[in-house]
Amino acid sequence: MSSEPLAAAIDAMLECEEAVTACAAAMVTEDDVRALQDAIIRDLNCADVLAATRRVVSRGSDAALLSSQLEACVLACEHSAELCAQHAGHHEHCRMCSNATVRCAEACRQVLRGLHG
Amino acid sequence: MSSEPLAAAIDAMLECEEAVTACAAAMVTEDDVRALQDAIIRDLNCADVLAATRRVVSRGSDAALLSSQLEACVLACEHSAELCAQHAGHHEHCRMCSNATVRCAEACRQVLRGLHG
Amino acid sequence: MSSEPLAAAIDAMLECEEAVTACAAAMVTEDDVRALQDAIIRDLNCADVLAATRRVVSRGSDAALLSSQLEACVLACEHSAELCAQHAGHHEHCRMCSNATVRCAEACRQVLRGLHG
Amino acid sequence: MSSEPLAAAIDAMLECEEAVTACAAAMVTEDDVRALQDAIIRDLNCADVLAATRRVVSRGSDAALLSSQLEACVLACEHSAELCAQHAGHHEHCRMCSNATVRCAEACRQVLRGLHG
Repeated sequence: MSSEPLAAAIDAMLECEEAVTACAAAMVTEDDVRALQDAIIRDLNCADVLAATRRVVSRGSDAALLSSQLEACVLACEHSAELCAQHAGHHEHCRMCSNATVRCAEACRQVLRGLHG
Repeated sequence: MSSEPLAAAIDAMLECEEAVTACAAAMVTEDDVRALQDAIIRDLNCADVLAATRRVVSRGSDAALLSSQLEACVLACEHSAELCAQHAGHHEHCRMCSNATVRCAEACRQVLRGLHG
Repeated sequence: MSSEPLAAAIDAMLECEEAVTACAAAMVTEDDVRALQDAIIRDLNCADVLAATRRVVSRGSDAALLSSQLEACVLACEHSAELCAQHAGHHEHCRMCSNATVRCAEACRQVLRGLHG
Repeated sequence: MSSEPLAAAIDAMLECEEAVTACAAAMVTEDDVRALQDAIIRDLNCADVLAATRRVVSRGSDAALLSSQLEACVLACEHSAELCAQHAGHHEHCRMCSNATVRCAEACRQVLRGLHG
């Protein structure tokens, strides 16, 4: 497959991993943390799944594992985006995080389309 | 679902992550490293996928992500086991690694059966 | 240096990484999460520092980096233990976590003594 | 301290983590892998130390741990740069990697100067 969607996905994952890590830490320290508990767990999961997926993509082999790990990554990004979007109005870090996870999920889907197309 | 298969899977993943990390590093420094190139990449991928999966399991929520990430983890362990098994006769670290990945894949499948059963 | 303190440190780090990861996630979902905010951040930091340190130890080379990373790991464990110990009376996961971090800090110090001794 | 050096360090660490991960995987698959064995181990160590350091920086608290982890990160980058620089003439990924690690070490030193200054 073309390397362009792979490079775009790696960039999106780097940006996204940083956004969800910072957002999770910021949510932990918010006054309304009680309302953010599920969103924090989803961001923490998303950061770890992103880190593993990015490394598998960067090593550029084992297409079956790559595909399976990208599917998990799309899910992790979507689940994180779903909850942070609900807090995007009152927390800037949630707005940035939900934008980054939406973009990253799409970049991962683009690679999956290239693998299966 | 019962917490027993989860605890067993976490233990298997911890042992396995250590085994594949140590095996990858040992293979890199072997005289016959040219014959081990694919096995090294698979072990490196396996270590990273295991780390993410174990953390998602430990956080104990988001069953859909857990299931998807466990599927990727089974694949990572199987692919690592497949190649290290070929070198188990002449490298003790490959023998230990392939045993650990086989056990870990089975422990992950056990959790998946509990999730879907 | 002898490999026994290294193996003991790796075991302590594996156990500890699991304890701080599970404890952080459990604290996030507690009713009194507002009282646990700093402890959560310290556990998250500790988990990540442990993961990196354990991998450097497992690769068994670069004594200068190993020493520096172990110093950071001792600090991460001590800082985590300090706060979780304050919640050990009312949260079982904090009690387990603070025990694990105290043990792990000591196992890392033992390796440092072997490196510098 | 000012947040500008922190943001610059996070960017440098993201770029560097990607460069060392990709370089390590590329070295593993080179024909002259026997000459690259130490450089591979250093890149693998560097990637893991970078990941932990970046997350601690992103969480923005615990200055003592931050300082200690940044010291380890500077060392990891310098050690990686030292060996990859020797292969920069014949491997493009080593040239990119050694540039990224040199830049990243400097960005981390800049944060350390801000912490201690």
